[in-house]
Amino acid sequence: MRISELSALSGVAIPTIKYYLREGLLPQGAQIAVTRAEYDESHLRRLRLIRALLEVGKLPVASIKQVIAAVDDETLPMHEMLGTAHYALGPKVEPEPGEDWQAARAMVDLLIEELGWNVHPQAPTRDELAQTLVRMRQLGVPIDLGPYAETARKLVSEVEMDTISFQGPRDAAVEALVLGTVLYGKAFDALRRMAQESESARRLK
Amino acid sequence: MRISELSALSGVAIPTIKYYLREGLLPQGAQIAVTRAEYDESHLRRLRLIRALLEVGKLPVASIKQVIAAVDDETLPMHEMLGTAHYALGPKVEPEPGEDWQAARAMVDLLIEELGWNVHPQAPTRDELAQTLVRMRQLGVPIDLGPYAETARKLVSEVEMDTISFQGPRDAAVEALVLGTVLYGKAFDALRRMAQESESARRLK
Repeated sequence: MRISELSALSGVAIPTIKYYLREGLLPQGAQIAVTRAEYDESHLRRLRLIRALLEVGKLPVASIKQVIAAVDDETLPMHEMLGTAHYALGPKVEPEPGEDWQAARAMVDLLIEELGWNVHPQAPTRDELAQTLVRMRQLGVPIDLGPYAETARKLVSEVEMDTISFQGPRDAAVEALVLGTVLYGKAFDALRRMAQESESARRLK
Repeated sequence: MRISELSALSGVAIPTIKYYLREGLLPQGAQIAVTRAEYDESHLRRLRLIRALLEVGKLPVASIKQVIAAVDDETLPMHEMLGTAHYALGPKVEPEPGEDWQAARAMVDLLIEELGWNVHPQAPTRDELAQTLVRMRQLGVPIDLGPYAETARKLVSEVEMDTISFQGPRDAAVEALVLGTVLYGKAFDALRRMAQESESARRLK
């Protein structure tokens, strides 16, 4: 298809498509004439992925380039490729100096070990959770992560992972991971607050 | 105690305390001399609540005023008072014109009815969830909220609500609700992504 059709089908404006081509986010089409390139399904899939990373994942272009590079590097196994996108989705957390941070981070590492979870020692989610624990301790919130970890494990292993296809095009797998992680994360957060309202009504009214 | 002691114990600077007094967020102390007011435990609790709303809830001062007004209005029952804080914590969502929105909002209303949840017809969480459903549909994400709703219900009724004391000072109950909702929301989000990484490793490695 021509660039105009690619634009119509993807909903991405032609100047934006040209920008992605220049930035190397979108592979060049097959040059079938001096002024005409031909695009196919793989370009459509890539545009869907870029939109997902940009609009739903809210990633900056620099992070999107890293994710796309991992998708394009066919030597990179599926798990590591998905990890690039997954790690980019979390908030950027800088370790804070001091004992509070070290204690919180040690608590996170111990929790993951006790759970027997396979989470990379340098996974940014470890620092992310440590930061929340530091805040909880500073503010006097009682800390008991066990039931939350068990809830997350059950939800992920029994429901979420079955919705991601690990077969098929790499672009599509990353897109499904990003959309599922972010949008179902938002949905769960709203449902949790609804359940809190409902339970508060049941107990107090 | 004097304002200097109140500042030291709360960690809130004296000019900030004076600003809260002027804005009516913090009740005046007992005037025991022309230039000296006396503060007590209730002022400390109020400062803790303001910090929780500001720093953890990320609420603007206008919303904080509304929450404080509900806390101070002793005729307002506990459930409604907690609701003011709870509703303020979610993102501000404006209904979008069009059929997609109406269909999504109808799906949310039907879900809550089928679940038998006691959620106010005008609760902002309904629009918040509707907005996420619109995005899911636009992006072709398969929609199945049932398992997420059940997970949220179980977590809230079996774990979360037991940690909030509905007895005791109103300030403290709202503070616990805000801290628990926001910080455990963040913790769960990080744990969910850790569980995803672990499950992905189990299935793919």
